[in-house]
Amino acid sequence: MKKLINDPEDVVDEMLDGMLSAHPDRLRRLPDTQVVVREDAPVDEKVGVVSGGGSGHEPTHAGYIGDGMLDGAAAGNVFSSPTADEFEALIEACDAGDGVLAVVKNYEGDVMNFETAIELVEMTGTEVATVVVDDDVAVEDSLYTSGRRGVCGTILVHKAAGAKAAAGADLEEVQQVAQKVVDNVGTMGTALTSCVTPEKGEPTFDLGENEIELGIGIHGEPGTERTEKMSADEITEELTESVLSDLDLSEGQEVATIVNGMGATPMMELFIVNNRLQELLGEHGLETWDAWVGDYMTSLDMEGCSITVCAVDEELKQLLGATVDTPALTTQ
Amino acid sequence: MKKLINDPEDVVDEMLDGMLSAHPDRLRRLPDTQVVVREDAPVDEKVGVVSGGGSGHEPTHAGYIGDGMLDGAAAGNVFSSPTADEFEALIEACDAGDGVLAVVKNYEGDVMNFETAIELVEMTGTEVATVVVDDDVAVEDSLYTSGRRGVCGTILVHKAAGAKAAAGADLEEVQQVAQKVVDNVGTMGTALTSCVTPEKGEPTFDLGENEIELGIGIHGEPGTERTEKMSADEITEELTESVLSDLDLSEGQEVATIVNGMGATPMMELFIVNNRLQELLGEHGLETWDAWVGDYMTSLDMEGCSITVCAVDEELKQLLGATVDTPALTTQ
Repeated sequence: MKKLINDPEDVVDEMLDGMLSAHPDRLRRLPDTQVVVREDAPVDEKVGVVSGGGSGHEPTHAGYIGDGMLDGAAAGNVFSSPTADEFEALIEACDAGDGVLAVVKNYEGDVMNFETAIELVEMTGTEVATVVVDDDVAVEDSLYTSGRRGVCGTILVHKAAGAKAAAGADLEEVQQVAQKVVDNVGTMGTALTSCVTPEKGEPTFDLGENEIELGIGIHGEPGTERTEKMSADEITEELTESVLSDLDLSEGQEVATIVNGMGATPMMELFIVNNRLQELLGEHGLETWDAWVGDYMTSLDMEGCSITVCAVDEELKQLLGATVDTPALTTQ
Repeated sequence: MKKLINDPEDVVDEMLDGMLSAHPDRLRRLPDTQVVVREDAPVDEKVGVVSGGGSGHEPTHAGYIGDGMLDGAAAGNVFSSPTADEFEALIEACDAGDGVLAVVKNYEGDVMNFETAIELVEMTGTEVATVVVDDDVAVEDSLYTSGRRGVCGTILVHKAAGAKAAAGADLEEVQQVAQKVVDNVGTMGTALTSCVTPEKGEPTFDLGENEIELGIGIHGEPGTERTEKMSADEITEELTESVLSDLDLSEGQEVATIVNGMGATPMMELFIVNNRLQELLGEHGLETWDAWVGDYMTSLDMEGCSITVCAVDEELKQLLGATVDTPALTTQ
């Protein structure tokens, strides 16, 4: 497989430097780490909001660092958790004295290393609250997970928590809105092709010329069903119905939606999926308050998409709609 | 080949509807056309700025419709020019009486159909100026082109012209800054894999497991050289040196750069390319004023990237740096 890389061992390092050289006025890398923070971190009189996880999901997470979203993020190696040391450095760099919310995707390595880091920083007086995102409705327990996986819904958690922190809320309030998103969001994905990690250089899993996988994870973990290829409308229906049946929303409920590309999916195809998604939501009597379409939480070069639906109330609408200014997401 | 589509004949129609349903407050589709315009077009007391071309390059062009950029865009079928009728409807919908700038990528179909449309609207008193973008330094004349091809540098033309129009300039002034970008920008691309059109469902061209193509066009048109696969650094050097040798800039010149993904390239890899690009520019004594990294002008599901360099003066810095609010590009 061909990739635009140099030595596979250097991909995260070179990627972070390439990101920094595109955004020198926004981002800063902590020396000798794979931790990236706001150029002006820690921000005075604001709760810090941090996240992190394995690389390969770009623009997640460092792409969401900036006003109204994350204060910093730790990047592990490809599909591997950052170390506890890196999480520790991240939290410390983003604490201005008002505490830090750690947004953790539910993978065993991330959860464990964040926990260790939190124990360490708490010994020096830093207050940390945590929210664990487990929005993937496809499977309970998985290759790297006890319980559900954290996937694209995480971006909405970042957005809501970041906006709440920017508005001057305290740590408990920031944690509460983050948890509110977790309680109201569901995601399910599909793969048309496998991702290929730089190190292995070969597909992580085999998928036939006429096969797709429903319920796929963002590291190529198995989904719910391997099936013959289907039309975009049929795939959209499968994913949407699974998410909606999990969320069990009332008619008239307002929702935010994401059609998320897995890394190698043309934007044309994502809009085609969104077209059917919005029709389906209408058929269910749901009202779309906002619809995002793009590559938010990718899986290297996997072809496919995920659909995220999040029920929103007035508070979440205000927070998700608040202005934000980051490399990957900016609104006026 | 697997794609997230329904009937290949419907891809553009469904894509546009999916885009509209994601941005109902920003975009409006002219009835019975593939023309999309600002919801509030035509904008009073402002020169209209329009573009268009074949589909398959998303977010180009409709993704750049909004405050500070395009007023509207016509979408042809995949890799096919919009008709003269569609260009005519586009121009008329975006003319508030102050004239319209048509930004045309240099492909024979686009140029011819825009010219016919302009003749038609001029008969009804609409004033139109044109700029033809031909930033691809790889080849003179090509499959669909006399002279150079218009590729990713077009986005900078949209940005500068749109900002100038938003600032209240007249048609001649808007045309002049658009031409200034054209005169100062160069791009070159590479493909690791071929694109696959929805209609054909197979690779447009064959590329071996260990081959790449340098100087590729955005429709899979042949480039300058087919070569053995190289590292990201080597590819970046080839592309950058070709662009710089064409532009012939003085030491100390400030530049804007784009590392553009072709549709199926992980963002990780684009940042790795940007890392080497910025080093190289420094070695040439050039100063990067702004660096963009992302999918701006794609070629369906082609894997690869292009590098764009544009020399900027105070006027272009002001225009390229002006705030913009579109589906695909927003700054504060």
